[in-house]
Amino acid sequence: MARPPSTTTKPLLLSLILLSLLLLPLSSSQSSHFRSSKRTPPRFPTRFSRPNKPQLTTKQRTQQQQQEYRYETRYFEQSLDHFSFSDDLPTFRQRYLINTEHWVGPNLMGPIFLYCGNEGEIVWFAENTGLVWELAPRFGAMVIFPEHRYYGESVPYGSLDEAYKNATTLSHLTTEQAIADFAVLITNLKQNLSAQACPVVLFGGSYGGMLAAWMRLKYPHIAIGALASSAPILQFEDIVPPETFYDIVSNSFRHESTSCFNTIKESWDALESEGSKNDGLMQLTKTFHFCQKLERVDDLYNWLDSAYSYLAMVNYPYPANFMMPLPGNPIKEVCRKIDNCPEGTSVLERIFEGVNVYYNYTGEYDCFQLDDDPHGLDGWNWQACTEMVMPMSTSQDTSMYPASDFNYTYYKEDCWNSFRVKPRPKWITTEFGGHDFKTSLKMFGSNIIFANGLLDPWSGGGVLEDVSESIVSLVTEKVFIALKARPSLGVAFYSPPLLRLKESIVPAEIDSNFCLLISGAHHLDLRAATAEDPDWLLEQRASEIKLIEGWLHDYYREKKAVLAS
Amino acid sequence: MARPPSTTTKPLLLSLILLSLLLLPLSSSQSSHFRSSKRTPPRFPTRFSRPNKPQLTTKQRTQQQQQEYRYETRYFEQSLDHFSFSDDLPTFRQRYLINTEHWVGPNLMGPIFLYCGNEGEIVWFAENTGLVWELAPRFGAMVIFPEHRYYGESVPYGSLDEAYKNATTLSHLTTEQAIADFAVLITNLKQNLSAQACPVVLFGGSYGGMLAAWMRLKYPHIAIGALASSAPILQFEDIVPPETFYDIVSNSFRHESTSCFNTIKESWDALESEGSKNDGLMQLTKTFHFCQKLERVDDLYNWLDSAYSYLAMVNYPYPANFMMPLPGNPIKEVCRKIDNCPEGTSVLERIFEGVNVYYNYTGEYDCFQLDDDPHGLDGWNWQACTEMVMPMSTSQDTSMYPASDFNYTYYKEDCWNSFRVKPRPKWITTEFGGHDFKTSLKMFGSNIIFANGLLDPWSGGGVLEDVSESIVSLVTEKVFIALKARPSLGVAFYSPPLLRLKESIVPAEIDSNFCLLISGAHHLDLRAATAEDPDWLLEQRASEIKLIEGWLHDYYREKKAVLAS
Repeated sequence: MARPPSTTTKPLLLSLILLSLLLLPLSSSQSSHFRSSKRTPPRFPTRFSRPNKPQLTTKQRTQQQQQEYRYETRYFEQSLDHFSFSDDLPTFRQRYLINTEHWVGPNLMGPIFLYCGNEGEIVWFAENTGLVWELAPRFGAMVIFPEHRYYGESVPYGSLDEAYKNATTLSHLTTEQAIADFAVLITNLKQNLSAQACPVVLFGGSYGGMLAAWMRLKYPHIAIGALASSAPILQFEDIVPPETFYDIVSNSFRHESTSCFNTIKESWDALESEGSKNDGLMQLTKTFHFCQKLERVDDLYNWLDSAYSYLAMVNYPYPANFMMPLPGNPIKEVCRKIDNCPEGTSVLERIFEGVNVYYNYTGEYDCFQLDDDPHGLDGWNWQACTEMVMPMSTSQDTSMYPASDFNYTYYKEDCWNSFRVKPRPKWITTEFGGHDFKTSLKMFGSNIIFANGLLDPWSGGGVLEDVSESIVSLVTEKVFIALKARPSLGVAFYSPPLLRLKESIVPAEIDSNFCLLISGAHHLDLRAATAEDPDWLLEQRASEIKLIEGWLHDYYREKKAVLAS
Repeated sequence: MARPPSTTTKPLLLSLILLSLLLLPLSSSQSSHFRSSKRTPPRFPTRFSRPNKPQLTTKQRTQQQQQEYRYETRYFEQSLDHFSFSDDLPTFRQRYLINTEHWVGPNLMGPIFLYCGNEGEIVWFAENTGLVWELAPRFGAMVIFPEHRYYGESVPYGSLDEAYKNATTLSHLTTEQAIADFAVLITNLKQNLSAQACPVVLFGGSYGGMLAAWMRLKYPHIAIGALASSAPILQFEDIVPPETFYDIVSNSFRHESTSCFNTIKESWDALESEGSKNDGLMQLTKTFHFCQKLERVDDLYNWLDSAYSYLAMVNYPYPANFMMPLPGNPIKEVCRKIDNCPEGTSVLERIFEGVNVYYNYTGEYDCFQLDDDPHGLDGWNWQACTEMVMPMSTSQDTSMYPASDFNYTYYKEDCWNSFRVKPRPKWITTEFGGHDFKTSLKMFGSNIIFANGLLDPWSGGGVLEDVSESIVSLVTEKVFIALKARPSLGVAFYSPPLLRLKESIVPAEIDSNFCLLISGAHHLDLRAATAEDPDWLLEQRASEIKLIEGWLHDYYREKKAVLAS
């Protein structure tokens, strides 16, 4: 029997939220328990790159990917605190991957492509960001992937355990410090190579995309532009409605199949009802094939929520193994399973058949392990408990989830209980902006691409319209077309301009008159090209390349030089 | 007998440089001692606002200025560390002065004028920044002067003594933290007043001007523009030649009188020669009227250097009391004294007559006190020993000073000895840019005015040409005109465009063909209007007002509103 996969993260944060809830008087209706702030905050898919996941070791990965992408692994001594001068703090070694084989060098002002490392091992991001590797020869560019502090091998205090010991050791795990690491590293590297005049272009996906956009805004003297893919930089405070994320997840399922959507929507009550029975937890353990007995219904709730959220993020049109091995258009597959069960199959059994596609597409597992994060103390939880407070809620009207408000009081308490730290929920917008984003940046800043796929639930917190001529939004096509051959209704276009319809687009009925066609997944554009790439993806990448070329041309014209390649 | 003024700052930093030098083998020539890295690094004039200076107390000042500028004094609880989450750190109360009497309020989106507090008590800056007060009624603006952390009353750890205790307590005295304080304060204030849509315009002079420019670059979502007056943001690393500062100081004297310049140039050898005699130090004490016996020639050297540097900074065309009570065109006055001594007056006696204008214009002091900073540990010294490393040297060819190189090794050692801290001389340019300034910002950023007076020695490190259409340089006129009526030579213009010549311009011969006419002093434009203001100053202020009006108009147009006043 194969080793069961560690599937969802069940962070201490959530456990403690639940614990707090148990201490509160339960409200009258059973289902109100679900309506409290109970859901694990959504994560970027990169959480699966953490060292405690049953994945390949760094060495194994390095061996594997070196067949594809070649690089040197180097280390750079970083200050733990760039913004203060506590010289009693230790330094730490930041890992970075570098490849100079295509670089045309300093004399030709060869560009430097820098990927802003996310919350995980950098090797994994290097492997999954084929675009940067594919563009390097074309642009004569150096490639560099610096790792984010406190992740992978780039941890202070000698070990991950020591670095994650408490709030004091974790205190320097912040985005501003991480961006400053990149700035210091690249400045030093350029100086050592006499490459001060070489333009740096930033890349990043997801949280890394936020870092890329923010770094371009904060360090324009260091990077001439940024491609920020699937970067939800507006998912803070009240900038976007807190329901956005789960509404998009839900729509992805609704677009695929209304009955699938309805089954999922019904399942929560069924779950709670089953869980409240005497042998309910044992029954649920059996229905969902857990290796150990389920201890709380909430754990199952989160296991399901996690599957749906990630499915929505990685709903790629071709088979992929970004987080789990999955078929192409996996939501279609999940819904096919849910919808096509023999008559008489219970709601919960249908749900199991569906999520089994996500958790066990290869069919190698006989049972599932819920608990894969015994300490619950990981980097992203810390970041979520300090700066990265992204309010999330669910609406019963517009989503397939039970209603749940974002309860900041609980959030704060749980962060205190988990880490002894107080979140600063307004800090990110103070430091990086977000409110009235377009007014601030319309006449300030330049050269940022915000790329989003509208099927990606994170796109709800992304920049979905052009800010200015050079701070632009590339959104995978979203087209309303008239249904039922009623040409009198005409065709309404969503910004950005209409692209021609492609076979890979998911059609879904909006109302009886219009049909919404959307596509795109979580930073799909950054992945390596494949033979299965739909045309819209090829077009999106072509737009990105053209914009980056433009930045470089402008820079070289400024520097009175010519494009090196 | 009046209490002698505490005249120059003689920081521990310098003392320790000298101490280090004494431990090194002396070089063969006596004057080589002078040629070493011996000079106190120049300071912004604001050092005279420190609490250990014999000035008015805050209360006295407040009483005095309240007759002129009315404001409320308030306090805001700040995080000591915005970029990390060490929750065991204390918070501190940041003082700010606020006036809303002319503000047209949030409904009309009344602007907020924020002066970025420098390295000293904020009350003093409020008193000396008349422009902001004068503009407030015209723009219907709120005025706010937040104090810089670790200065005045805005100190952590309960008291100045505790805050300045050691490197650990001082570690959060950095520019980035100070700017973040302003950002957090104004964001909070706007929220409390429902004034989120009200545009913020930044002002700052000298170091405060650097903060204003940097804050506009880093927080464009918080401030729509910045007037950065006399802000030497390029005085770092090798961006400008390290001799620039002292060359400009020297030129100010040379422009006034070649013989004055030459006398000063000769005086250093005379000083050293006198000081090396048996009773030399006693003789010098007598010549220069010190209250206590001079202990080192270097102390006198710094006392003189300080006078010349500050005279160059505040060479205002009218009597002023910015740092010391001084006549109008004080360098002219100093040189008149130096040049017009009876024949037979020694070089050093002439020098005394000259600097006596600076240190004792009111004639109330019978002797001078050298040591006014017994601990040598003040905020600016810390800042200079951490981030604000501004290399300075003197050239024997182009200045009136003996040659002296910037010796970073000594600098670093002295910082270690003084504070147990290691400077990061490349950090400011990494964090804020500076190298290739124009290329970085030509297509990034907007709405910054860099105002400089070319007689101000800090202008050498300032932005002296337009970066883009909206990042502009306002430089007091600098015009080369042909001498000796040789019209065939034509007239060469310095950027910015030629203004018409004014009577207040100081003419000086550059070579036999050209004459350079320059004017302007250290952030003169920010001072209150006076009847004596020369036309070029009126024109500079008018340009500033027009630009600020333009920023506001653009903003209101964006917000589909009209200018409130």
